[in-house]
Amino acid sequence: MSEKKRQKTERAPFDPVRHGLRADFRLTRFTKLKGWCKVPQEELLKLLAGLGSSLNISDGESLGAGLDCCVIPTRHEGISLVQTTDFFYPLVDDPYDQGRIACANVLSDLYAMGVTDCDNLLMLLGISTDLSKPERDVVTPLMMEGFRDCAEEAGTSVNGGQSVLNPWFIIGGVASSVCAKNEYIMPYNAVPGDVLVLTKALGTQIAVNAHQWIEQSETYQKIADVITKEGVRKAYESASASMSRLNRIGATLMRKYGAHGATDVTGFGLLGHAQNLAKCQKESVDFIIHSLPIIAGMSDTAKIAAKKIFDFKLHEGFSAETSGGLLIVLPKEKAGAFCQEIEELEGMPGWIIGDVTSGNHTAKIADDARVIEA
Amino acid sequence: MSEKKRQKTERAPFDPVRHGLRADFRLTRFTKLKGWCKVPQEELLKLLAGLGSSLNISDGESLGAGLDCCVIPTRHEGISLVQTTDFFYPLVDDPYDQGRIACANVLSDLYAMGVTDCDNLLMLLGISTDLSKPERDVVTPLMMEGFRDCAEEAGTSVNGGQSVLNPWFIIGGVASSVCAKNEYIMPYNAVPGDVLVLTKALGTQIAVNAHQWIEQSETYQKIADVITKEGVRKAYESASASMSRLNRIGATLMRKYGAHGATDVTGFGLLGHAQNLAKCQKESVDFIIHSLPIIAGMSDTAKIAAKKIFDFKLHEGFSAETSGGLLIVLPKEKAGAFCQEIEELEGMPGWIIGDVTSGNHTAKIADDARVIEA
Repeated sequence: MSEKKRQKTERAPFDPVRHGLRADFRLTRFTKLKGWCKVPQEELLKLLAGLGSSLNISDGESLGAGLDCCVIPTRHEGISLVQTTDFFYPLVDDPYDQGRIACANVLSDLYAMGVTDCDNLLMLLGISTDLSKPERDVVTPLMMEGFRDCAEEAGTSVNGGQSVLNPWFIIGGVASSVCAKNEYIMPYNAVPGDVLVLTKALGTQIAVNAHQWIEQSETYQKIADVITKEGVRKAYESASASMSRLNRIGATLMRKYGAHGATDVTGFGLLGHAQNLAKCQKESVDFIIHSLPIIAGMSDTAKIAAKKIFDFKLHEGFSAETSGGLLIVLPKEKAGAFCQEIEELEGMPGWIIGDVTSGNHTAKIADDARVIEA
Repeated sequence: MSEKKRQKTERAPFDPVRHGLRADFRLTRFTKLKGWCKVPQEELLKLLAGLGSSLNISDGESLGAGLDCCVIPTRHEGISLVQTTDFFYPLVDDPYDQGRIACANVLSDLYAMGVTDCDNLLMLLGISTDLSKPERDVVTPLMMEGFRDCAEEAGTSVNGGQSVLNPWFIIGGVASSVCAKNEYIMPYNAVPGDVLVLTKALGTQIAVNAHQWIEQSETYQKIADVITKEGVRKAYESASASMSRLNRIGATLMRKYGAHGATDVTGFGLLGHAQNLAKCQKESVDFIIHSLPIIAGMSDTAKIAAKKIFDFKLHEGFSAETSGGLLIVLPKEKAGAFCQEIEELEGMPGWIIGDVTSGNHTAKIADDARVIEA
């Protein structure tokens, strides 16, 4: 374990009082939207229609190209610019962790294309005008520090960016890598017989929401039958650690084991991203998902929440993830070794969650899909 | 004149009624901050202090490096990634023009380093949650179209980006160019005897504000002695056209005439940016500004506004510009030809506004500086 990782593990959770703030200070209150706040996909497509192919602001995902990054040939022979951007609103209350998550999330799009080296990060920051000066002085440096530390862990650095004042807190970035042809993996080479591997458990959205519910005793009572407050806190910690974790080792192993393509699981949920990935395949294939690894306790919580609070559609595969895992298409005979090696290197497992069959460019979750408590 | 430029010239100004919106719809009302909204430079420096050199979110400008872009060596021999980002809030009421201005503004940082070819643009968009659905449906596509058209005019395209919902409207982007060593100009080679050239007139901030004052008759009365409403409208149109204009020809001519360095004039005003540029010079030089080209009518308006409404500090060189001109250090014997050629190619003049002398890395405006009505 590197020095940096050990520091991270040993870091005390954010305590507003220790920083001179009110005990009830919560970063997530400085936005009305948590985490993902994308313009609805349909509306975006309508906006883009008619503007022509020279304007594509959805990273190609929803437009058929199926790429998590843009890949732009340059005027230098054999050299392309691989690039992505993402920013969002706070979804955890620890500013340092929020910074790490934002950084891991933006880098993840590069890793989904098998790019392991980021040449530069830009930081995008909107500091909430609703924060008092003392709050701002505590929160902003911690968030920047988390972002910077995560960048260092990824072997890159932050050079450039923009910071503005905005009603809601915004944190995000731009990740760029200048790549030769053998330094990225196009996502569209799945063949029947391949399998699907997922590198992080699902359920981050329900975990961050449940963590807010335990402070509202009326709401918590609605889920109290299936999970203790301590269980929610553990799930939240798992989610936060998962969202802070880089997908870089996954990207390295994608190259080592000859992945046929990948995407990362974020705002559209596991099935949403699987569908986008299926659509862009060269061969006529389907993706059939047979297993759903879910953060411990969150499967039952999601089920009862769907009835009594809000339906995140976790089991249907549409619950948004932030800084989720890589969904990787691998030759069947390589997948076991991939999962074994990622567990050795990261201390966290990967799961074989589905099959690639002959088909029609669709993805679905099997009726008898099983939940794996992770 | 290209087809695209002709279309732009002939395009009717934005009329909310023609688009089915209320006559008093104003894009600039969907933010409480107009245009530049940077975190104060001092506060930003404090935030960055202690985070180390691996985190630099101000494009180097205020940290001594003096660069408008970051220049990152890559793992490919002789190839660097030159990159910048900028986003801000609407400052004009025509959504199409606002899109063009945002695009010209982000590209300007590349041009300030003599980079003429942008490999990719990302678009950053925050759509205001305060807009009604019909307003959103009108405004957002127009803004994107303006951004896209300006990108095309610059010989590049928009691939990738992020769009979110946000209380205030946000528009901006990321410009990247993968460059060989001879494709950019470092800003720090001024020598005594050089002169300073400016490629756009000053006063965009006062023009966009005065344009709002003419709708508030009480405020307009305070400046009515020095300018007619028609005069304000003309200044606003000049400002809008100026902010939409690319600095690309300037960048091309910087290379042709062997510029010793440059910056673009934006949020810190002419003198703020001149001071940053002076600080980073290798030789011990001063910049002495003897002329202030100002959009017609705006010099008098700024003077009276300073007494009766708000002091933008235009004559002191600190009035923020959006998508302002290039401030270029040129060998004295080349400057005349540069100004002549830019006027031939763009139809708009450049001005020799100052001298480089032996000194102490400072910039100042001479006491007897003259205003040029532009």
